[in-house]
Amino acid sequence: MENYDAVDVIRAKRDGEELSSEMISWVVDAYTRGIVADEQMSALAMAIFLNGMIPREIADWTAAMIASGERMDFSSLPKPTVDKHSTGGVGDMITLPLAPLVACFDLAVPQLSGRGLGHTGGTLDKLESIPGWQAEVSNRQILEILGEGPGAVICAAGKGLAPADKKLYALRDVTATVDCIPLIASSIMSKKIAEGTGALVLDVKVGSGAFMKDLDRAKELAKTMVDLGTAAGVRTSALLTNMETPLGNAAGNACEVDEALEVLSGGGPQDVVELTVALAQEMLRQAGRDGDVEAALANGRAMDRWRQMIEAQGGDPDAPLPQPKETELVTATADGYLSELDALAVGIAAWRLGAGRARQGEKVQAAAGVLMHAKPGDAVKAGQPLLTLCTDTAERIPRALDALAGAVTVSDHKPDVAPVILGRVLPEGE
Amino acid sequence: MENYDAVDVIRAKRDGEELSSEMISWVVDAYTRGIVADEQMSALAMAIFLNGMIPREIADWTAAMIASGERMDFSSLPKPTVDKHSTGGVGDMITLPLAPLVACFDLAVPQLSGRGLGHTGGTLDKLESIPGWQAEVSNRQILEILGEGPGAVICAAGKGLAPADKKLYALRDVTATVDCIPLIASSIMSKKIAEGTGALVLDVKVGSGAFMKDLDRAKELAKTMVDLGTAAGVRTSALLTNMETPLGNAAGNACEVDEALEVLSGGGPQDVVELTVALAQEMLRQAGRDGDVEAALANGRAMDRWRQMIEAQGGDPDAPLPQPKETELVTATADGYLSELDALAVGIAAWRLGAGRARQGEKVQAAAGVLMHAKPGDAVKAGQPLLTLCTDTAERIPRALDALAGAVTVSDHKPDVAPVILGRVLPEGE
Repeated sequence: MENYDAVDVIRAKRDGEELSSEMISWVVDAYTRGIVADEQMSALAMAIFLNGMIPREIADWTAAMIASGERMDFSSLPKPTVDKHSTGGVGDMITLPLAPLVACFDLAVPQLSGRGLGHTGGTLDKLESIPGWQAEVSNRQILEILGEGPGAVICAAGKGLAPADKKLYALRDVTATVDCIPLIASSIMSKKIAEGTGALVLDVKVGSGAFMKDLDRAKELAKTMVDLGTAAGVRTSALLTNMETPLGNAAGNACEVDEALEVLSGGGPQDVVELTVALAQEMLRQAGRDGDVEAALANGRAMDRWRQMIEAQGGDPDAPLPQPKETELVTATADGYLSELDALAVGIAAWRLGAGRARQGEKVQAAAGVLMHAKPGDAVKAGQPLLTLCTDTAERIPRALDALAGAVTVSDHKPDVAPVILGRVLPEGE
Repeated sequence: MENYDAVDVIRAKRDGEELSSEMISWVVDAYTRGIVADEQMSALAMAIFLNGMIPREIADWTAAMIASGERMDFSSLPKPTVDKHSTGGVGDMITLPLAPLVACFDLAVPQLSGRGLGHTGGTLDKLESIPGWQAEVSNRQILEILGEGPGAVICAAGKGLAPADKKLYALRDVTATVDCIPLIASSIMSKKIAEGTGALVLDVKVGSGAFMKDLDRAKELAKTMVDLGTAAGVRTSALLTNMETPLGNAAGNACEVDEALEVLSGGGPQDVVELTVALAQEMLRQAGRDGDVEAALANGRAMDRWRQMIEAQGGDPDAPLPQPKETELVTATADGYLSELDALAVGIAAWRLGAGRARQGEKVQAAAGVLMHAKPGDAVKAGQPLLTLCTDTAERIPRALDALAGAVTVSDHKPDVAPVILGRVLPEGE
C-alpha cells in the first residue's frame, strides 16, 4: 500500500478536494493501526463533515472500513439471508417480532446488533430482560441457528467486524462529528456488508426522536446507504418511517418485549403492527420470497419461531419479565385530544429512568421505561393517565419528569396524525 | 468559571455559530489543563479553520491564551519598550541589526523569539553560531539588560508565556490547521501581549517564501493583529514586505550573522538595509521617538550596541564565525538577467543543507546555508556563480540541489523587481 502523510490527506479534504481511493484506503488502515493519531482523524472527520464526500469517496471509505476487519460468510447456508437495520428510535422494538416472523418464510435472518447509547434503546438491552437470554453468540453458533435452528438470531456483533468503524465512532462521539451523512452511511453499511447478508432493508427514522430530523436528510441518508449496499452486491432498499412520536405504547426494555409478545400473538399497537408487516414484506421482496406475513402473526407461526429463537440463546420464553419497583403516573391536565407526544422527550425520560446508558459499559434497568396510555389523535379527559414512568430507583423520577416538560400537548381539535411509513427508497432503476 | 461540554463548543463552531466569550475562555483553559482532549481541540481548530471567527472571538481567544500563563511586566523600566515580530521568511536576519539599532534611541527592545522550524530560519539559531552566545536568559536578566545594559535583548521566550499557544501550535502542526488567520494572529499576539511590550511593529511577509502567499491574505492577517494589539493597549502597526525572493545575500545561520555585521558596519545588501531602516523608523514612530537611524548605522553607534548586546549574553563579538566544511557552486546556464530566485526553494535548500530542523529539538549546523551572488534584476553571464551551497555534510548537497530545481531563472529581458515594502497597516483611524 502506498504511504501518505496524514497532514496532506487532511489538507486535501480541508481544501475541498476529493480524496483518492488510495488515500482513503491508507488513512483508514493507518488510523486503525494507530499510525494516524486520534487528533488527526478528528480533524479529518471535521473536514469531511464540513466539506462532504462524493459517492465514490463514501464507497471507498466503506470498503476501507470493511477491509480493517473480518467478513462473515453465510454462503454455506441452504437459504437466502436477509437483514434489517434501523437507524434508531424511541420504542423501536420492531426487530423482536420481525426477525422470527421473516424466518417463518425459509429465510435466514441474522440481526447483529449493538448496544443502546443515549435516548434510543438497544435491541440487546431489551432482550436481556428475558431471564437466561444471552447476547453473545459465536460465529459457529450463528451459522447453526440460521441453518438448522430457528433461522433467526439477534445477537451482539462480533468485535472483528469493521474495527476501524468502532474506533472512529468512539472518536466522532466526542468531537461533534457524528451527524454527517457520509460518515453515518459508511459506518452502518461497513458493518452490514462485512456481516455478509445477501439482502438488507433499512428502516430510516425521521423526526424528533431520530437522528435525522427532517425528511430530505433522511432520504439522502437512505439513498446513500442503498447505493452503497447495491454497489457491494447486497440487495438493499429502505423505508422512511415516522419518529416524531414513539413507536407503540412502551419505551424501555422489558415493557418493549411485552409489546413484541402482543404483536406475535396477533395483537399489539396498530403502528407497531403496520411497521412490522411493512418491513417483513419488504424483506421478503428483497429476498425474492412470497408469503402472507399477516397470517403468520395471526396463526402463531411467528410466535413459535420467537420461542425457538429465545431458547436457542438460553432464554426462557415463559419466565415472567421483571416489573418496576417504582411507578409514577402522568395524567391529562385538560379534556381534548392528545396532539403531541414528543419522541425525543419520551426517549430521554426512559433513559433517565434507567432504561438506557450514558456511557458504554453501563448497566441498564430491565424494568425501567415509559408506558404510554394514549397516542396522538386519541381523545383524552382531564385526570386520565397518559404515561406511567417505571424505574427501580425512585430518585430518577424527577429528572424524567423534567425531560417530559412541554412534550405532551392536549388540544381542542383532533390533530392530523402523520402516517407511520413516509416513503420508500429503492436502488437506481428499480 | 462556567463549565461547558467540549462537544457543544465544537458543535457550535461546526454549525457556523459565534462562540461566546465564556465558551472560549473555558475551552482554551480546559485544553491547557488536559480536560479537553487533543482530538477535541483539533476538531474545533478545523471548524475554526473552515468557518472562521469574528474579531470579538479572535480577541477572546487571544485573551484566553494570555490567561493560560504568566505575563511579563516592563513598567519598571525607565524607558519605553518596543518590539518587532516577523511572520518568518528566508534570509530574514533583520532582527539582528534592528534590535541594537533601535536601542540606540533610548528605547528598550525585548526580542523574545522561538526556534526555527521548517524552511524559515530561527533568529536564535543564527545567533548561536556566535561562540559563547546564550539564548536562555532569566526574566531578571532581561530587565537588567533592557534597563541598565545595552537596551536590546534577543533571547528565548520563557516557557511561562501563553502555554496554551505552545500546546495548540504543536497540535495544529500535525492536523493541517496552521494556515488560518484567526489562529495565526491569536498565536502571535498572545505571546507578544503577554510579553508586555508597549509598542509593536509587525513585519508581515508576502510571497513564495512566506506563510502568506498573496497580498490580500497578508493584509487581512496584519489588520487582524494590529487590531488585537491595539485593543490590548499595545501601540501596534505592520509593514507588508516582499518574500518572493530571499532577503539579502545569505540564507542560513553564521552567514546571516555575517550579513548583519555588514549592515551594522554601514554596508550590507540594499534590500536588507532598506527593510532594517524602515522597520527601525516605524518602531521609533510607535514608541514616540525621533531619530536618524541611517546615521546610527553609518557612525558605528548601532555596532557598539550590537557588541554590548552580544557580550551581555556571553557571546564573543570578535570570535571568528564557523565556516562550512563543504561547498558547492550553482552557476548561470546562460547569459541574461536573473529573473527569478524563489524564496521557498532557497529556504528549503538551506534547511536541507542543515541550517534548519524538521523537528523541535533537532540540532542545526551553524555554517550551513545558501550564499546568493546575484539577485533578481542582476545581469549574469553563463558560467558565473549564482549560489554557493554550504554544509558540514556533503551527502546533504544532492537533496538541496533538488530543492533548487526550477527555482533560478535567467531570461533575456531585465525583469521588473518588486519593491521590498509593499504596504503599511495602521490601527483604525490613524
